[in-house]
Amino acid sequence: MPTRYDAPLALMRVALAQAARVSGLSALPDFNELLAELSGTALEGAARVARDVLSPLNGVGDATGSRLTPDGVLTPAGFRDAYGLFCEGGWPALAAPAEFGGQGLPTLFGAAATEMWAGANLSFAMCIESAVGAVETLRHHAPDGLRASYLPQLVSGEWTASMCLTEPQAGSDLSTLRTSATPEGEHWRLRGRKIFISWGDHDLSANIVHLVLARAAGAPAGSKGISLFLVPKLQRNGDGSLSANDVRAVSLEHKMGIRASPTCVMSFGEREGARGWLIGPLNEGLRCMFTMMNHMRLGVGLHSTGLAQRAWQLAREYAQERLQGRDAAGAQRPIIEHEDVRRMLLGMKALTHACRCLAYTAAALLDVASIATDTALRARAQARLGLLTPLVKAWCSDCAVEVASLGVQIHGGLGYIDECEASQIYRDARIGPIFEGTNYIQAQDLLVRKIIREDGTAFEELLVQMEQDARALDTVAGLASLSEGLRAECAELRGSTRELIRTSGTEAQLARCVAYPFLQWLGVVAGAWQWALTAREAAATASDPAARALLDCARFYAQQLLPRARAFARIVANGADPVLAPRLGEL
Amino acid sequence: MPTRYDAPLALMRVALAQAARVSGLSALPDFNELLAELSGTALEGAARVARDVLSPLNGVGDATGSRLTPDGVLTPAGFRDAYGLFCEGGWPALAAPAEFGGQGLPTLFGAAATEMWAGANLSFAMCIESAVGAVETLRHHAPDGLRASYLPQLVSGEWTASMCLTEPQAGSDLSTLRTSATPEGEHWRLRGRKIFISWGDHDLSANIVHLVLARAAGAPAGSKGISLFLVPKLQRNGDGSLSANDVRAVSLEHKMGIRASPTCVMSFGEREGARGWLIGPLNEGLRCMFTMMNHMRLGVGLHSTGLAQRAWQLAREYAQERLQGRDAAGAQRPIIEHEDVRRMLLGMKALTHACRCLAYTAAALLDVASIATDTALRARAQARLGLLTPLVKAWCSDCAVEVASLGVQIHGGLGYIDECEASQIYRDARIGPIFEGTNYIQAQDLLVRKIIREDGTAFEELLVQMEQDARALDTVAGLASLSEGLRAECAELRGSTRELIRTSGTEAQLARCVAYPFLQWLGVVAGAWQWALTAREAAATASDPAARALLDCARFYAQQLLPRARAFARIVANGADPVLAPRLGEL
Repeated sequence: MPTRYDAPLALMRVALAQAARVSGLSALPDFNELLAELSGTALEGAARVARDVLSPLNGVGDATGSRLTPDGVLTPAGFRDAYGLFCEGGWPALAAPAEFGGQGLPTLFGAAATEMWAGANLSFAMCIESAVGAVETLRHHAPDGLRASYLPQLVSGEWTASMCLTEPQAGSDLSTLRTSATPEGEHWRLRGRKIFISWGDHDLSANIVHLVLARAAGAPAGSKGISLFLVPKLQRNGDGSLSANDVRAVSLEHKMGIRASPTCVMSFGEREGARGWLIGPLNEGLRCMFTMMNHMRLGVGLHSTGLAQRAWQLAREYAQERLQGRDAAGAQRPIIEHEDVRRMLLGMKALTHACRCLAYTAAALLDVASIATDTALRARAQARLGLLTPLVKAWCSDCAVEVASLGVQIHGGLGYIDECEASQIYRDARIGPIFEGTNYIQAQDLLVRKIIREDGTAFEELLVQMEQDARALDTVAGLASLSEGLRAECAELRGSTRELIRTSGTEAQLARCVAYPFLQWLGVVAGAWQWALTAREAAATASDPAARALLDCARFYAQQLLPRARAFARIVANGADPVLAPRLGEL
Repeated sequence: MPTRYDAPLALMRVALAQAARVSGLSALPDFNELLAELSGTALEGAARVARDVLSPLNGVGDATGSRLTPDGVLTPAGFRDAYGLFCEGGWPALAAPAEFGGQGLPTLFGAAATEMWAGANLSFAMCIESAVGAVETLRHHAPDGLRASYLPQLVSGEWTASMCLTEPQAGSDLSTLRTSATPEGEHWRLRGRKIFISWGDHDLSANIVHLVLARAAGAPAGSKGISLFLVPKLQRNGDGSLSANDVRAVSLEHKMGIRASPTCVMSFGEREGARGWLIGPLNEGLRCMFTMMNHMRLGVGLHSTGLAQRAWQLAREYAQERLQGRDAAGAQRPIIEHEDVRRMLLGMKALTHACRCLAYTAAALLDVASIATDTALRARAQARLGLLTPLVKAWCSDCAVEVASLGVQIHGGLGYIDECEASQIYRDARIGPIFEGTNYIQAQDLLVRKIIREDGTAFEELLVQMEQDARALDTVAGLASLSEGLRAECAELRGSTRELIRTSGTEAQLARCVAYPFLQWLGVVAGAWQWALTAREAAATASDPAARALLDCARFYAQQLLPRARAFARIVANGADPVLAPRLGEL
C-alpha cells in the first residue's frame, strides 16, 4: 500500500519560528507578520503539491528512471505533467525577486518548501534546486543583458538550469579542468566534456541553461584560470527565435538511487563550439560558482531532511500496522510497541528535527545577510552562515543516511525490496555525502577555512550563543541532561578548537586528520542546541500533547544521541598520529 | 577496470592462528599441525577458486539477477558452470564428516573459506552456506534413514538446500506460522506458503532439500507446536528414481542487493500436498532449526567480513590510482595520500580484521565444543559460543554496512554508479543486519538470554579473559591506549551488566530498551580485544613491515574506534526512560 508524503507542518512551523528567532530574522521589521502568513495557507499549499503532484511519482521515477534517446533525455511517465502543474502554481522560484517575476519570499520559507519537494520526490526536487541556484548566481554575477534574457524564464520555470563543474580528471579538485572557451565577438565558444551533470538534459523544459566552468584561452593554469559561462541548450538568435546550441548529453549513468534525475555526461562543442556568455569577471569563475555551490550545499541539507522525514513517516506507518509478538494478554502487538522499534523511531525523529532546524537556521541567516540594513548584523549573519553551510550539508546528509538505514531496519526483509519506498529512500540518501563537495571537503571548509583561518571568531560566538541557549533551559524540569550536556560539550569544543588554532602553524596536517570527526562532533552538539531551543518553547505549553512529545524527544536526543559527542571529542583529542603513522604501503 | 577479489591470506593466517589459540583449540591434540597444513596450500586453493571462479561473476550476478521462468528459477550466465567447478574441487562441505563424503576439516578452516566465497560473490556464497547448514542440521537431528538418503548428495554439492521459516504474518515471531503438515503413512503432506526463501529454487543443482517449519495436525498453538520437516524438490520413488514434489517458487523478490541469489516465495502443496519427512522430535522444530540458524548467524558474520574486506580492497585500489590535488612540489597526488582517505581506509581495515578474528573465534569454539574430550572444556566453549554467535552476527553485519559505506565514499561519485562494485557491496551488505534474525533479535538474545538469564557467568569469564589479554599488552611500546582502554571498558561493562542483572527482576523492559546499544558497546570492545591479541603477536616481530602495519592498525583501533564505547556506555547508563517515556501517539 504505497502512501504519499505528508509534510510535517506542525514541526515545520516550530522550525520556521525557531530559525527566525535564532538567526535574528524575526527582529527585522515586518518579518514576523509575513512569516505567520506564510506558515499558514502558503505552507499548506506547498504541502498539497508535494503530496498530490510529486509524491505519487516517486516510485515510478525509481522503477523507470530517465533514459537517453536520439531526441535527448526523456523523464519517467508523469514527470512532464507534474512539472507543468508545479510551474502553474508558481513554485519554481518562490524566493526569486519580484523584478524577474518571482514572489520575493524569504529564503527561509523557500527552505521549508525545498524540504517538502525532496521528501516527496528527491529526483524532481534536484531539478528545481538547480534552477533556483542558477537564479541566485545570475542575479549576483551576470551582466544586466544576460539577467534580462534568462532570469524571467528561469524564475517562471519555463526554462531550467544545470551546474557543470566535474570532468573525468577534475572532481574534488577543479584546478585541473580542461573545458576551453575561445572568444568570438561578444560571446565565447566552449569545447569539453563534463560528467555527473544532474538534469543536464531532459524533457521537462524546452531550454536548459548550463552554468559551465571553463578555461578561457590564454588563462593561467590551475584554479586561477577558471571562468564561469552561461551556455544555453537553445541559443537566442538575432530575431529572438531559438536554435540548437552545440551541446548534448552523450550518456547517462545508471545509479544506486535518484534514478529519475538524469545524471548526464555532457559534451560541449563537438562541432562549431558551444556558444557561451561570460558570467562575472574573467578568471573568477570559481568565486561566482560558489554562489551556486553554497546554495546547493544548503539544498543538500534541506533535501536530506526531507528524505529523513519521509523515512520516518514510512517506518512509523509500517510499525503501526505490522503485527509481531504478543502482549501479556496474548494479543498480537504492532511492532511500534516493541522497545527497539520505539528506540529507532525516536532516533529518526530526533535527528530529523535537529537537521531541519539547523538547515532552516542557515536559510534564515541568508535572509538576514541580504535584508538587514545594519551592516554589522549582516556581516555577523554572513559569518555564521559560513560556519553552518558546510555543517548543514555534511551533517544532515550523514544523518539522512543513518535515518534511512533505520527506516529499512524497521521494515525488516520488506525494507530490502525494490518496491518498498523505504529501500528507495536508503538508496537515494547515499548520494548526499558525496555530491556538491564530499563531506570531507565540507569538514575541511568548516575547520580549516571557517574556524582556524578566521582565528575562531565566528565559531566562539556560536559557542557563546549555544551556551546561553542551554542555560535558558535550566528552568525546564527534566531537561537538565540536555542543558548540562550541551554546555559541557561547548566548553570542550572551545578548548579543543583553541588548541587546534594554536598548533595550526606548525601542524598543518593535524586539522585535516581530525576535520571529519570534528564536524561530526559539532554536528551532534549543534543538534542538541536546536533541541534546546525547541524544548524551551515547548515547555511554555507543556500540557499540550504536541509540546509534550517535543519535550520527550529533546530528552531522547540528550540521552541517546548527544553521548556520541564523547566519542568524537576523544578521537579529535587523539590527534593526527593514528592517521599519519602508517606508511602508505601499510594502508 | 573490474578487479577480482583477492583473499587476504596473510591476515587470514593471523586470524586463524589467533582464533585457535584464544578458543583453546590449539591446545587440543594434533590440531596445530593440521591448521598449519590447511593455512598453506589449502587456503591458497580456496583463494584461487574465489578469485578465478566466483569473483568474475559478481558483477554479472548483480546486473542480471536470477529470474523466474515457467521451468523454474534460472541463475545468471556463468553461475551453473561455476557451481560445477566448485563441486569438482570438493568445496561445498569442507567441514562435513568423512562418513558422508566430507573432508572432515575443522569448522575454523571452513570459516576462512566461507569468508572468501562471500568476498568474491555473496549471492553464490549464500547458496553454499544453506547447504552446509542443512548438513549440520540433518547430521544432528535427522533419523538415520534420512541422513543416508540426503547427506551424501548435500555434502558433494550434487544437491543444495534451503531454509523455509518466514511466512507473511510470521517473521521475527515464528509462533504464528500456519504451514500445515498432515501425516500420511511414514511421511507427511505439507501445505502453505513461505516467503523470503533464499535459493528456494534455482538451476545450480537438480534437487533442492527444503528444511521447512510447519505445524503438524493437532499440534498446540504457538511456538510449541512447530515441527521441522525435510521437503525435497524432487522426491525419491520406491525404485530410487526421482519425481517432482508438490513445491514450487511462485515469485521472486526484486531486491536492493544480492540479486543473483533468488529470494523466493515458495508454495508447498498446491495440489496433493508436498511430501515431507519429520526431522527431530514432533513439536521440537524450533530447537532443531536452531542448529541451522546458529550456523547461518555465524555465516552472516563471516560473509559480512568478506564483504568488508572486498570493500576495503576496492577502495584501496581506487585510492592508489585516482589523482586529485597536488603535493608541495606541484605534482598530482593519488588520493590515498589524502589524510581523510587514509583515515577511512584504516578504519575499514581495523574494523574488518576485528570482525574476522571474532567470527573465526566463534568457529573455533564450535570445533572445541565438538572435538574436545574434556566435558567441562566443551561446556565452556559452548557457553562462550552462545555469547559470540549473536555478537558476531549483529556486530559484523553492522560493521560491513559501515565499511561498505566508507568504500562508496572513497570512490566519490563513481561509488554511486551501478557498474562500480563498491556500489554493489554497499547494497549487498545491507541485508546482513536484517536476515537470520534481525540485529535487535541478536541483541536481545545476547543480553537477555545469554547474559541476564545465565546470571552473567559466561560473560564475566569473557571479561576476565579480555582483561588478561589486555594486560599482556602492557609490555608493548605504544599500545598503552589499547591496553588501558580495553581494561577500562571491561570494568565498565562488568558494572553495567551486574546492575542490569540486579534490576532485571523488576525492570524487564530495561534490558530490551538498552539491548542494542549494549551489543554495540560489547562489539567495539570485543574488537579491541581481538586487536590486542593480534598486536601482542605482532610485537614479537615488530621489525617486519607486515607486523608493523598490524601494530599501527591496532593503535588506530584504540584511538579512533574504541572511543565509540564511551557513547554506548552512556546510552546504556541512561536506561529505559528515554525510550519508554513518550506515549505511542508521540512516536
